[in-house]
Amino acid sequence: MATDQAESDADEADTYEQFEKRVQRISNVGNAAGILRWDQEVVMPDEGTPARAQQLSTLSSLSHELLTADQTGELLAALEDDELADERAAVVREIRRQYDRETSVPQALVEEISATASNAHPTWKRAKEEDDFEQFAPTLEQLVDLKREYAEHIDPDADPYAVLFADYEPYIDLETAERVLERLRETLVPLIDAVQDSDAELTTDAFSGEFDDDDQEALARDVLDSLGYDWDRGRLDTAPHPFSSGTQFDARVTTRFEEDDLLGSITSTVHEFGHANYTQGLPDHGYGTPLGEARDLSVHESQSRLWENHVGRSRPFWEHFLPIARERFPELEGVTPEEAYESANQVHDDNLIRVEADELTYHLHIVIRFEIERDLIRGDLEVAEVPRVWNDKYEEYLGVRPETDAEGCLQDIHWSHGDFGYFSTYSLGSVLAAQLYAAAEADRGPFDDAIREGEFDGLNGWLRENVHRHGKRYVTPDLIERATGEGLTADYFLEYVESKYGELYDLEGY
Amino acid sequence: MATDQAESDADEADTYEQFEKRVQRISNVGNAAGILRWDQEVVMPDEGTPARAQQLSTLSSLSHELLTADQTGELLAALEDDELADERAAVVREIRRQYDRETSVPQALVEEISATASNAHPTWKRAKEEDDFEQFAPTLEQLVDLKREYAEHIDPDADPYAVLFADYEPYIDLETAERVLERLRETLVPLIDAVQDSDAELTTDAFSGEFDDDDQEALARDVLDSLGYDWDRGRLDTAPHPFSSGTQFDARVTTRFEEDDLLGSITSTVHEFGHANYTQGLPDHGYGTPLGEARDLSVHESQSRLWENHVGRSRPFWEHFLPIARERFPELEGVTPEEAYESANQVHDDNLIRVEADELTYHLHIVIRFEIERDLIRGDLEVAEVPRVWNDKYEEYLGVRPETDAEGCLQDIHWSHGDFGYFSTYSLGSVLAAQLYAAAEADRGPFDDAIREGEFDGLNGWLRENVHRHGKRYVTPDLIERATGEGLTADYFLEYVESKYGELYDLEGY
Repeated sequence: MATDQAESDADEADTYEQFEKRVQRISNVGNAAGILRWDQEVVMPDEGTPARAQQLSTLSSLSHELLTADQTGELLAALEDDELADERAAVVREIRRQYDRETSVPQALVEEISATASNAHPTWKRAKEEDDFEQFAPTLEQLVDLKREYAEHIDPDADPYAVLFADYEPYIDLETAERVLERLRETLVPLIDAVQDSDAELTTDAFSGEFDDDDQEALARDVLDSLGYDWDRGRLDTAPHPFSSGTQFDARVTTRFEEDDLLGSITSTVHEFGHANYTQGLPDHGYGTPLGEARDLSVHESQSRLWENHVGRSRPFWEHFLPIARERFPELEGVTPEEAYESANQVHDDNLIRVEADELTYHLHIVIRFEIERDLIRGDLEVAEVPRVWNDKYEEYLGVRPETDAEGCLQDIHWSHGDFGYFSTYSLGSVLAAQLYAAAEADRGPFDDAIREGEFDGLNGWLRENVHRHGKRYVTPDLIERATGEGLTADYFLEYVESKYGELYDLEGY
Repeated sequence: MATDQAESDADEADTYEQFEKRVQRISNVGNAAGILRWDQEVVMPDEGTPARAQQLSTLSSLSHELLTADQTGELLAALEDDELADERAAVVREIRRQYDRETSVPQALVEEISATASNAHPTWKRAKEEDDFEQFAPTLEQLVDLKREYAEHIDPDADPYAVLFADYEPYIDLETAERVLERLRETLVPLIDAVQDSDAELTTDAFSGEFDDDDQEALARDVLDSLGYDWDRGRLDTAPHPFSSGTQFDARVTTRFEEDDLLGSITSTVHEFGHANYTQGLPDHGYGTPLGEARDLSVHESQSRLWENHVGRSRPFWEHFLPIARERFPELEGVTPEEAYESANQVHDDNLIRVEADELTYHLHIVIRFEIERDLIRGDLEVAEVPRVWNDKYEEYLGVRPETDAEGCLQDIHWSHGDFGYFSTYSLGSVLAAQLYAAAEADRGPFDDAIREGEFDGLNGWLRENVHRHGKRYVTPDLIERATGEGLTADYFLEYVESKYGELYDLEGY
């Protein structure tokens, strides 16, 4: 018996090694594609596109073939028969999920969606430029139908929108997301009303002026230095749409500079730091498997928003950082930390555009998109009705009505990519950021003094310990529960914004 | 019959399409790896190495598996039964060659060579630092044995050195290479003697001084602008060891700047332009197959050396370029084009180091390495004898004897990589450069006036037409014959150096 057990252990080890090797190959192909995409956004010359598109398409199909090969299925089945150690079981769980999803959708449908989305992009762009929703409507209808078909292949019995949502957020129930968004709407609509009725006069122009690009870049480096970015495992570049990408060994940040928007470049850099800092905190030994990969979009966004909002838009941060900014920009000499803080937290009146929104109105933009795309995919809303419903909701939730579809339902790129189910992860990220920040302060005491001193190791140490180092070892609800002692809840976020904006805008009852 | 023929044509088309798709995938994986290597040399943060090594290893093994798969062999066999159009036959010929080589060497041996070479690198580096050949000798012996074994797998009946040479230069006979190198040695040894005995006093210090890096970079961009580099399909960066890489859609150049070596950065940039300009001239429609790939190392090097030497080290080039250089560096105001020309063509007396060599002595460095590595691989020379033989040959051919192995047989990195058979392609490139340049002038008339005016379109048009656009369509001897009307010959190179240096150094009989 002992020998049998030993032999069976050896077999398992052997099977697991084969499996792990396959998983690592898939991961390496994906990470290579990540470098190619970074290169395309940051350094590739203009005419490189045709070759790059072919290279990325080859890598994507190789990765798909490796994942969906019979051997993968056989190895998964063999390993699922065994009692695996926790870490191994987690790898098997994650790959099983990807395997099931990718094998259930016919490759022809995947390619049709990809081709339709490629063509949809210029159509959407022209429709937006010409403010003509009619031009985009047939394509949007096509994409909605295709994505519904896609969802049916994965699970014919499930709500198709829940299936699509799970592409981005596999372990959070759609019901949880809906509950959170509903609470945000219920609480934020009256809070924003109160802010808009407030007589408080905030400083809004602490950062007005013209700021040289090179000096802004130097300051962005100061930001990253100050927060503790590991330059030996990353770099900073500029890109038209800032993003972060890479692995724990090489987690890169991009940002952008506009002459009249110094504050925007600072907050965007802090935001991208949050993403890259998460990536840098993933465990080295997990490289190549889900153990060394970030949990999904909401958790990633929780990291960027924790740093952007709870740190970068706080009073102590500006007490710490304003003197650094003044070294680069002596014209900030007359600005006080309080004025900088107020400027960084201004709530706008006429907010129609999501990407220009503040910390409060932002989530109503998300709620509107969420409700509309959910109803579209479920078949409860016709494409032709989208502009009217969009405008009605903006009027109801935000008190403004778009005058054109270009600044209404055509403003975002996502639907033209066939991305339905994605938007809510932004709000879930904010909510989780507040929950994690509160748990970190409950554990380690308030961070205000440390932030004022430019000391971020305490906060980051807590995040490393409770979030980063786990990679995908735990499913998201377990990760949140272990880190904060409870399930995902909007409580902390609402508490945070009510207290912050109540004080800033001198609101009664907040 | 007609129907049968049509069906058979349709089958062939179908088989060829399958084959081409497979070839394109292999090419895309290789080009993706090329971007990863560029990234590693140019932008990757220091600690990115462990992940990058795994990514490159995965891409390399995927490419190997795609190439050596049974399907590749079956498609090749089926297509070789057909009468294919010329271009298709060329693609089949090139892939057949790669397929035969890669399938004949056991993967375990390939991996052993790769692992041995990885370990050899630090050993060589330390041996060089400590000037201790003994430390490196056992590893060198191991690499020689492994590469001999590798050659035997490919062709047990052939001269193993010829097999290794064919890895770099598949269609030029080793005999041709030997004949060329012998002629170089016979002619250059007395020519260099004569130069060293000459009383001519050349200006050697036209570019002495200290030159700011940023200004040098601006000047390198001027060089590329002036020669006609297509910036929409390329970019310039810095790297410790300058190189060019990429595809016709994206052919990038790197260079380096040393404060006290402005001339070196200019000539190195012109050299890399030659490589990248070849790549940019490959046909777009051939991307992904050998039709859109550069012919091998000698042809590639012929392009870099044609531009570096025949253009960049010519009198008319300096008449054209010196005024441009003066705009960046006013301190060159007092330098005449003739002085610049002389400084760019100085022959040194005490030349021990290959990478610092001039246009004449360079080839003797190559001849020495070629003779030694050929004899090592053939088993005609023991590793222990290398330092003595090396020093003897330097004394005999160049009249200098290295005092240390660090500046002797340990100076180059190549053998520690297991690269045997590579060096001679540098000299073959110079020889072919002269032959092509002479043929271009025979076709289009002398280029001197155009170069003086900064007009390079005529020369480049000839190269595009006769070399670049063909990709790998013709085997190298055919490409050379079609472009120049004769086989590879050292005549034009020797005529060029004898006339150039005879005049510069006022040599009798030249």
